[in-house]
Amino acid sequence: MDLLNGLLNKEKRAIARMITLVEANDEEALRILSDLYKFSGKAYVIGITGPPGAGKSTLTDKLASNLRKEGKKVGIIAVDPTSPFTGGAILGDRIRMNKLATDPGVFIRSMGARGHLGGISKATHAAVKILDIAGFDYIFIETVGVGQSEIDIVKATDTVVMVMVPGLGDDIQALKAGIMEIADIFAVNKSDRDGADRTKVEIEMMLDFSCTNWRPPVTKVVATYNEGIEELIDNVFEHKNFLISSGTFLEKRILNSEAEIIGLIKDRIIDRIVNDSSNENDVRIYAEQAAKRKIDPYTASVELLVKSMKEVDNSGCKKG
Amino acid sequence: MDLLNGLLNKEKRAIARMITLVEANDEEALRILSDLYKFSGKAYVIGITGPPGAGKSTLTDKLASNLRKEGKKVGIIAVDPTSPFTGGAILGDRIRMNKLATDPGVFIRSMGARGHLGGISKATHAAVKILDIAGFDYIFIETVGVGQSEIDIVKATDTVVMVMVPGLGDDIQALKAGIMEIADIFAVNKSDRDGADRTKVEIEMMLDFSCTNWRPPVTKVVATYNEGIEELIDNVFEHKNFLISSGTFLEKRILNSEAEIIGLIKDRIIDRIVNDSSNENDVRIYAEQAAKRKIDPYTASVELLVKSMKEVDNSGCKKG
Repeated sequence: MDLLNGLLNKEKRAIARMITLVEANDEEALRILSDLYKFSGKAYVIGITGPPGAGKSTLTDKLASNLRKEGKKVGIIAVDPTSPFTGGAILGDRIRMNKLATDPGVFIRSMGARGHLGGISKATHAAVKILDIAGFDYIFIETVGVGQSEIDIVKATDTVVMVMVPGLGDDIQALKAGIMEIADIFAVNKSDRDGADRTKVEIEMMLDFSCTNWRPPVTKVVATYNEGIEELIDNVFEHKNFLISSGTFLEKRILNSEAEIIGLIKDRIIDRIVNDSSNENDVRIYAEQAAKRKIDPYTASVELLVKSMKEVDNSGCKKG
Repeated sequence: MDLLNGLLNKEKRAIARMITLVEANDEEALRILSDLYKFSGKAYVIGITGPPGAGKSTLTDKLASNLRKEGKKVGIIAVDPTSPFTGGAILGDRIRMNKLATDPGVFIRSMGARGHLGGISKATHAAVKILDIAGFDYIFIETVGVGQSEIDIVKATDTVVMVMVPGLGDDIQALKAGIMEIADIFAVNKSDRDGADRTKVEIEMMLDFSCTNWRPPVTKVVATYNEGIEELIDNVFEHKNFLISSGTFLEKRILNSEAEIIGLIKDRIIDRIVNDSSNENDVRIYAEQAAKRKIDPYTASVELLVKSMKEVDNSGCKKG
């Protein structure tokens, strides 16, 4: 009850505690979050992603600072699916955030891979909701890398800013191919370096091949010197206006909800099969048989699934 | 039947066709793969991973070329979870592979995210098995990035080589924290560049903090000039010998099988809930309700799961 009131009163400590409890799959906290879900949906959620070394943290800080000047409350969730650190721990260069961290209108949370029963994607979705309910106007989700889990995380956002940087090397082609469809805005950071114009041109050329109603703007920025940040914020507002005026805003949020629901279903089933003490041994036994080539993994997965379904059936609806 | 014989006769065309069919979830191909599974397990599987721009493709090519000189048959599966390209398409710099591609003792396959019903992790596991059955001695799985999906893919391997490169920027700390536990060997590629020794020292320092029975060697290489490749191959052999002599080889393969079986179960359930035409509308309807804040996603996931379980029950075991 204290937690509930603290959350509705937008107390930082209550918010932090709530996120920690939800990360730990605390039933009471999840029930509160279910109940309060109807108060969410007001915050605008911005994903910041891109390859390692692109300066995403610095850029997020500057975006947050500029929004603060307009009196907006800003939440930052820094997600690193490859990091073992979690729960308010420090994500590499997140130490720079000191100035923001003491601002009462800013809430910062780092999330690593460990300590999240049910996956980092679920924990991120939950943290966004908690900050949303607590009245934050803008919520940034910053992720390292552009792998599948980052794409999953991005499915919790309204606008995705892809941060690129000059001179990423050979893999830029492969990277760009995969990120084209998730990026709403491109920021070429560290654009005081050689090759920034070339990177911008390369991105524009790739965009020439896609024919969507929204053409992602490509903006050169130097986050460290606060250059181009206002333009980037304008890009975000333009994208938001586009989503609303084109009628795709709700559709995007429906797709986000769909992804979240499917993720939750996956978690529940795996939780049942793997963490149920009676089944844990089963999975292990099947895996041993498969490693020894006595059963193939396809057959094993069917047999385990049938078993777990039967257990649901036996406990859920008794047969004469 | 032609496919089965072609596969056992190690014909490249049959192998390629089989991988394509399994990617498309072809039932007949999956049945063949189940039947032939008992012939797999002989190949040694090596994961090559690391951040974008580390030169993984070039390094993989050189490792493969050197193993070819010893008469070994080598398969290469280049996985890019962020790429839309699939099925033999060209992965960025994979064009360099021309020389290897014409070698009858080498099979190369690129895999993108699209066109894989059931996920790229499943398709990669299947491709490894097909190459294994077809008698390849060494199979490389090369992945871009170090996100969760890459970690999943790495769970299909015996030895993981993490390719680092001097001057990765600020994110290197975060990257290193996450990859410590999946790397069996570190290669510092492009080590003719400034900062290679510093990178090596940084990795060694992190390794000083871990206390496992196997200490990953850190080897400086320049893949482009074939420098350090033999030493890296020796590292792989040493790790293989360690796994066998320490009795952890089977344990590792059991854990790999466990991860694969759990992945297959996830795929089956999601396939049932999302792709079943009667349910597809349900997921969509729930997502719409959630986006409009009329139901919360936690409740939605439970209701959908209960429904899908009931359907299994109704079709599987009729009640009086």
